[in-house]
Amino acid sequence: MAKDFTSRNEDYSKWYNELVERADLAEHSAVRGCMVIKPYGYAIWEKIQAELDRMFKQTGHVNAYFPLFIPKSYLSKEASHVEGFAKECAVVTHYRLKNAEDGSGVIVDPEAKLEEELIVRPTSETIIWNTYKGWIQSYRDLPILINQWANVVRWEMRTRLFLRTAEFLWQEGHTAHSTKEEAIEESEKMLDVYADFVQNFMAIPVIKGVKTPNERFAGALETYCIEALMQDGKALQAGTSHFLGQNFAKAFDVKFATKEGGQEYVWATSWGVSTRLMGALIMTHSDDEGLVLPPKLAPIQVVIVPIYKGEDQLQHISIHAKKIMSDLEKKGISVKYDDRDTHKPGFKFAEYEFKGVPVRIAIGPRDIENGTVEVARRDTKEKEILQQLDLANKIEHLLENIQQNLFQKSIDFRTNNTNNVDTWEEFTLQLDKGGFVSAHWDGTPETEDKIKELTKATIRCIPLDIKPEQGKCILTGNPSTKRVLFARAY
Amino acid sequence: MAKDFTSRNEDYSKWYNELVERADLAEHSAVRGCMVIKPYGYAIWEKIQAELDRMFKQTGHVNAYFPLFIPKSYLSKEASHVEGFAKECAVVTHYRLKNAEDGSGVIVDPEAKLEEELIVRPTSETIIWNTYKGWIQSYRDLPILINQWANVVRWEMRTRLFLRTAEFLWQEGHTAHSTKEEAIEESEKMLDVYADFVQNFMAIPVIKGVKTPNERFAGALETYCIEALMQDGKALQAGTSHFLGQNFAKAFDVKFATKEGGQEYVWATSWGVSTRLMGALIMTHSDDEGLVLPPKLAPIQVVIVPIYKGEDQLQHISIHAKKIMSDLEKKGISVKYDDRDTHKPGFKFAEYEFKGVPVRIAIGPRDIENGTVEVARRDTKEKEILQQLDLANKIEHLLENIQQNLFQKSIDFRTNNTNNVDTWEEFTLQLDKGGFVSAHWDGTPETEDKIKELTKATIRCIPLDIKPEQGKCILTGNPSTKRVLFARAY
Repeated sequence: MAKDFTSRNEDYSKWYNELVERADLAEHSAVRGCMVIKPYGYAIWEKIQAELDRMFKQTGHVNAYFPLFIPKSYLSKEASHVEGFAKECAVVTHYRLKNAEDGSGVIVDPEAKLEEELIVRPTSETIIWNTYKGWIQSYRDLPILINQWANVVRWEMRTRLFLRTAEFLWQEGHTAHSTKEEAIEESEKMLDVYADFVQNFMAIPVIKGVKTPNERFAGALETYCIEALMQDGKALQAGTSHFLGQNFAKAFDVKFATKEGGQEYVWATSWGVSTRLMGALIMTHSDDEGLVLPPKLAPIQVVIVPIYKGEDQLQHISIHAKKIMSDLEKKGISVKYDDRDTHKPGFKFAEYEFKGVPVRIAIGPRDIENGTVEVARRDTKEKEILQQLDLANKIEHLLENIQQNLFQKSIDFRTNNTNNVDTWEEFTLQLDKGGFVSAHWDGTPETEDKIKELTKATIRCIPLDIKPEQGKCILTGNPSTKRVLFARAY
Repeated sequence: MAKDFTSRNEDYSKWYNELVERADLAEHSAVRGCMVIKPYGYAIWEKIQAELDRMFKQTGHVNAYFPLFIPKSYLSKEASHVEGFAKECAVVTHYRLKNAEDGSGVIVDPEAKLEEELIVRPTSETIIWNTYKGWIQSYRDLPILINQWANVVRWEMRTRLFLRTAEFLWQEGHTAHSTKEEAIEESEKMLDVYADFVQNFMAIPVIKGVKTPNERFAGALETYCIEALMQDGKALQAGTSHFLGQNFAKAFDVKFATKEGGQEYVWATSWGVSTRLMGALIMTHSDDEGLVLPPKLAPIQVVIVPIYKGEDQLQHISIHAKKIMSDLEKKGISVKYDDRDTHKPGFKFAEYEFKGVPVRIAIGPRDIENGTVEVARRDTKEKEILQQLDLANKIEHLLENIQQNLFQKSIDFRTNNTNNVDTWEEFTLQLDKGGFVSAHWDGTPETEDKIKELTKATIRCIPLDIKPEQGKCILTGNPSTKRVLFARAY
């Protein structure tokens, strides 16, 4: 176990915080609720961004950039949107500072008060639909398929690195369509893109579903989501895609001339994932020895550590190490050769283990004699001696194997922690054990609220692939036609 | 000339604004001073980002992310910095809205006033150095070579798309070093990176120099810059790199243990370029027919337009067009095949010309018979008939040729518009004609201010490669040892 490092069993929440800081992923800043994403953490986020961006473009989307600020009045234009977002937010009221007359520093210039306050965007539907109004006249201008990479601010009172911060980084897609069907198809397509990415790159299994009306995005007619399960048995919403109907088009009066010559309001979707994914990534795979990263998102996939005494031995080993490095790089594998003479191999081993580098290759004088290396994988901690011959191919397969193994392990964990229950007693018992609890619900917001009040569990989603089944609501005993997924959640 | 499009001679400023909007690069938003960067404009910015990011990483830098907000008191910590930046800025004073009691919408909740106001970052030296304090203990922690891609806000009263907006996108490098020499070397290295990028990718020649003390970044000991010349004879600062000495380390008390066991303040640099580069790109190359883009930054490098009557002919042409497209793509050239049947070829020609696509290939039934295509280049408007045989190689060379030609044209323009003058009369006359004016200056801020007041021209830089030369100040007649570069500027 890593030195002075809290284990998951001891205190899961403390384990998480220590891990994030000690693995150099992020830290709290001097500004309440805002984090600093450190280079190693940001390098993972860049990999997430690059892959998602590729997938968005492959599905026909383009990037653009809209203002950071939203006029206060815009938030009020869509009735339910204002309820959801115009609450805890950063409000810009002035545009100038001046020197204090007593020389004590700078103060806000009372004469530089804005006529209308500006809100730092908590999400951009309003400013974007106000812009789309100028871009859309006819069906020929549709669809608009735009994504934005941006920072957003929601004034959270209790913050946790990556999981809940006042400022966070995200992407938000905002699309405009001429028909309801096309907009729904788009929301579903983007949900699939998210699920594909989270499962195949982050190695996190997700359940695709829709939110109950209570849990929908403020302004949406349908919120699709992917839900993941963390190691402490709590659920985490990993991404959402919203079918917004014509709500924002009506709020901002965005109509288009149809092929048939009529005028209709435009149909909308929006969808987003954020730096919260970093939290999911960390919590899904990591262990009491530190971070565990799926190879596809690891900034360093393979580290090579020389074991040597004296400069001569190092030089000799370096020739072999660099050959291996070059062979791996030819396969597109990112490699670091750590020949620092300021640290011992044991220190380096511990450091890369804690930072979740998937594969470590150690090479010493005995290896040179035997034409071998020692290969250690981070996920299972297994070590083996491999011949240098054909090593790059073996490492390539090993990386694939690690990626697969992490995914399978997470699937198994979820399977073992998902239970169907049919009585209230079982329900509360199971929730205390953690995991997803699949149960019948009578479909009313009142029951949902009551269950949340009694158990702190929410309906994470109504799974898309759930089979119709007659049953009785876990709380009220009223009839229900399908199970929904409950859990306590982040 | 493009229809209803203002020419440069008619009204340069109007030409620019129309160009930016009509080429779908950007537009003004509903928020005063903030722009919307449209997909086509953003695609160019993405190419700029990708190349710069590659160059930063190649020179050993990594990316990270720091908070959007800066506590007001931080700005006061570095004396000259506060003078420069704590003036026109967006001030967050509250963190909550609430429903107005009269039901008229949302209002700022007076009870949610921040104890200390937050400033939306105009630049991040203060918040970053406050963070570095926690990261730096010993010489072993140095250097820190970090870059951030971010949005920043400076409350500008007169704004112009890309050139001067309240919110803009940029990158800011912030590095920390153990010696003065290393920090100076870093500032100079990054200036070279900027010059390399702007000249070789943007095809804009620049002059490398240092700013006079008057024009230095607030908090810097030396500001290095690259200066470019626009077609209207005005100069534009395309990038700056600052040697900050120990100013920010002292302001935030950042010391390190030296190898020898002492304690010393850390040495700093910062450097940045912004979406302002988009303005420079547009103004350097474009003409009365619209945008002209250097191939290395063009989102679409080649467009193929079929000339046809009827579906049969189109199908036949498409086979050839797609073969050409695939050959070009194999060379890494980005190609669009525009077979829309909603628009005529003439309309398409005009559209791509206006949007600055470097090469247009037209292919009609006659071409199919002859095994030819018509190739038009955007920069010179020349057209020629080429054999389809070996076309991809020819287009590849043509793109290189266009890139070179744009650069050479800009160099020639600058050469023709740079003049040495030695009398005040010549000086003012030459400034009115536009361009760089190289003249002697007595080295005092007072003279510099006076010249600015009289002519609206500023010292753009003291060129790094300027030769020592005895002379007399253009205004005061006092002795001077070298010429400096004056111009009216954006």
